[in-house]
Amino acid sequence: MRVADLIRRKRDAAELLPEEIRFLVDGYTRGDIPDYQMSAWLMAAFLRGLNGAETAALTDAMLHSGKVLDFSDIPGRKVDKHSTGGVGDKTSLIIAPIVAAAGLRVPMISGRGLGHTGGTLDKLESIPGFNVNLSLAEFRRALRTVGCGLIGQTAEIAPADKKMYALRDVTGTVENRSLICASIMSKKLAEGCDALVLDVKVGSGAFLKTEEDAALLAELMVETGRRMGKQVVALLTDMNQPLGRTAGNAMEVVESLEVLSGAGPEDLRELCLVLAAWMLFLGERVNSVEAGKRLAAELIASGQAREKFREIVKQQGGDTRVVDDPKLLPRAAHTLDVAAAADGYIAATQCEQLGVAVVVLGGGREKKEDSVDPAVGLVFRKRNGDRIARGEPLCTLHYNSAARLDEARRLIETAYMIAPQPPAAGRPLVGRVIGG
Amino acid sequence: MRVADLIRRKRDAAELLPEEIRFLVDGYTRGDIPDYQMSAWLMAAFLRGLNGAETAALTDAMLHSGKVLDFSDIPGRKVDKHSTGGVGDKTSLIIAPIVAAAGLRVPMISGRGLGHTGGTLDKLESIPGFNVNLSLAEFRRALRTVGCGLIGQTAEIAPADKKMYALRDVTGTVENRSLICASIMSKKLAEGCDALVLDVKVGSGAFLKTEEDAALLAELMVETGRRMGKQVVALLTDMNQPLGRTAGNAMEVVESLEVLSGAGPEDLRELCLVLAAWMLFLGERVNSVEAGKRLAAELIASGQAREKFREIVKQQGGDTRVVDDPKLLPRAAHTLDVAAAADGYIAATQCEQLGVAVVVLGGGREKKEDSVDPAVGLVFRKRNGDRIARGEPLCTLHYNSAARLDEARRLIETAYMIAPQPPAAGRPLVGRVIGG
Repeated sequence: MRVADLIRRKRDAAELLPEEIRFLVDGYTRGDIPDYQMSAWLMAAFLRGLNGAETAALTDAMLHSGKVLDFSDIPGRKVDKHSTGGVGDKTSLIIAPIVAAAGLRVPMISGRGLGHTGGTLDKLESIPGFNVNLSLAEFRRALRTVGCGLIGQTAEIAPADKKMYALRDVTGTVENRSLICASIMSKKLAEGCDALVLDVKVGSGAFLKTEEDAALLAELMVETGRRMGKQVVALLTDMNQPLGRTAGNAMEVVESLEVLSGAGPEDLRELCLVLAAWMLFLGERVNSVEAGKRLAAELIASGQAREKFREIVKQQGGDTRVVDDPKLLPRAAHTLDVAAAADGYIAATQCEQLGVAVVVLGGGREKKEDSVDPAVGLVFRKRNGDRIARGEPLCTLHYNSAARLDEARRLIETAYMIAPQPPAAGRPLVGRVIGG
Repeated sequence: MRVADLIRRKRDAAELLPEEIRFLVDGYTRGDIPDYQMSAWLMAAFLRGLNGAETAALTDAMLHSGKVLDFSDIPGRKVDKHSTGGVGDKTSLIIAPIVAAAGLRVPMISGRGLGHTGGTLDKLESIPGFNVNLSLAEFRRALRTVGCGLIGQTAEIAPADKKMYALRDVTGTVENRSLICASIMSKKLAEGCDALVLDVKVGSGAFLKTEEDAALLAELMVETGRRMGKQVVALLTDMNQPLGRTAGNAMEVVESLEVLSGAGPEDLRELCLVLAAWMLFLGERVNSVEAGKRLAAELIASGQAREKFREIVKQQGGDTRVVDDPKLLPRAAHTLDVAAAADGYIAATQCEQLGVAVVVLGGGREKKEDSVDPAVGLVFRKRNGDRIARGEPLCTLHYNSAARLDEARRLIETAYMIAPQPPAAGRPLVGRVIGG
């Protein structure tokens, strides 16, 4: 097998065999195939496309490029959730303890924020002491004792994905459905979970802006997971406005604790209940999604989910006092209200811009190497369809440095479209379910 | 300007600006842009295509990546010819002395054989002592005194092409019209010629198998040359069978000397006269192509072209005795006839296979690092349309090592298609002229 031939064949739109794809991925991971050949192949795959079988073969090869975790010795079904990323999406922090409190195991390998979307790891790290860099032995212990571990991708898990993603990032080959699918699914399937719920975001704050694109990615991920013997369900959920009332790492931990305490904003609570319900259903803890939703609500109402969150924080070395006293979390020194320039209704939100505003305040990363200020962020005061009066606050900025404050404010001012009439109803929070 | 943005824009089929293309080429040549980004961009350009303006910009950037020769201080028009490569194509060795004997200047930078096609440099090096690695100062002196220099690409000329071609070779991005055009034209325009005649081969022994592909490349090269202020004409010529009677380095020098002495095979002589005629016409030495053809024939008949060949050999350190006594050139130790298996007519020739047979005998390169045996080669005994009897020789192999003799013989046996009826007339030797 010659690499140049495999590049040419994909360039000419031929279908590659699983062993050919494995040859490429293994050779690249080992360093036998240089970056310049892999990037040419990735561009050919990007433009010519990979079919379902090729996507599954790529996922499988990437998955087996490193350690595939096996938790079969730990009793109970292992379930996980993955989100394609959005603004204000803190559902992992709420769902993981709910589902673990129900007796299932949640081995969750998460990412960091990059671009306009936040990352679970950054949010968790705003809790003083919280360690997301557990060894695999520690991860296993957390799963066995607490029922949940929340860690970052380690060097042992899907090293091919790590290397390929870094290459894709600088060679214009990120936004391809098959490559995205293989990247997500190889990591998620290496976690050793039995079932997986995918939260595929759609809208102005999502990576995928249209229902059609989101549905195609969702279908491909469900198909890929099933080809590999896993139960996978994908929910298309709305991201035409931020989820919940805050975006920013510590602020989102506070909001998550509100939901775990039975309060919190309705949209965030509802989505968490639905996602947890699907996990409980696929994990065979309940017989229907409806029953799963009821159980999730009960686990919140009884305080068990909140207690499980405390156990998780403790297990991973974090300061558990924040559970009772969220004021102990980092807080920004200053606030600034951004006010509406006109009377009317919030007709639409350029949600991605709000995510970028968080980055500009220092709460996210423009480059991988950037450090993150856990305290800064936004409080959203209005939702799509809300009535607003001129001068009334749309959003409150929490900031430490005024260096790029104007830039963040302008992003927010232009993110909200105010119209004299209320808008038509938007997408439902939870739309199509694929694979259910 | 960010490289990743330029890759993405080409990936999405946008037209890049000249300064963007120059940024890519300059950055890559300097080493600021890594191979993996360039190869992704090349694949995007391959699959999305570059338009005429982009192709000209790429050519211009590659041309200016190194030294652009300026021979304006040397009197006389400078003209050159470039062939896209074929089997038995030794026209450069014949044309260069004809045109120089007419008083024009021929600054010719040539290539080596790679794959099934031969290279002018390898042929010249079969002449003992002939040095194709002149310094630019020596090249200039040769042009001033003899009127012609025949050298290889130096590190100073179009270094971007050298680096990009090596990358394209291993990343499946060779066979693209715009990239081929930019590679050829950047080198040729860096030579400092005023006019250029392109011999674009079409057929089973050519890189371009169809008239349409050849015409499109020819048009693009002519357009690119004109955008850059050069006179360029392209001739589509037949390569459905070898040119002349031999393929193999020293054997082709012998055949070239035959033509320069007024003999030699008719097809080779005719093509040389036509190509030389166009060079003489574009070089303003004659007022019509017909007059150019007559002048070329006269320069052969008078012996002036042959004397110019001797001067060139002398100037570049070669043994001039070979001009009078070609037997002094390297000769293979053994010969073997390959005979026809049936009575009939040569209906068609898989000409590329004959070129590969020369490589198999050691007369060409499979990899760039391979050394070449100057003595080996083939003598073609039959041409398309010729009648042949069973057992009569089709071709004679000249070889030194029997190691891969069977392989070469099989290639030749299967290269000739023998049919009971004579074939319809093939393509004319010289077909369309583009830009004339």
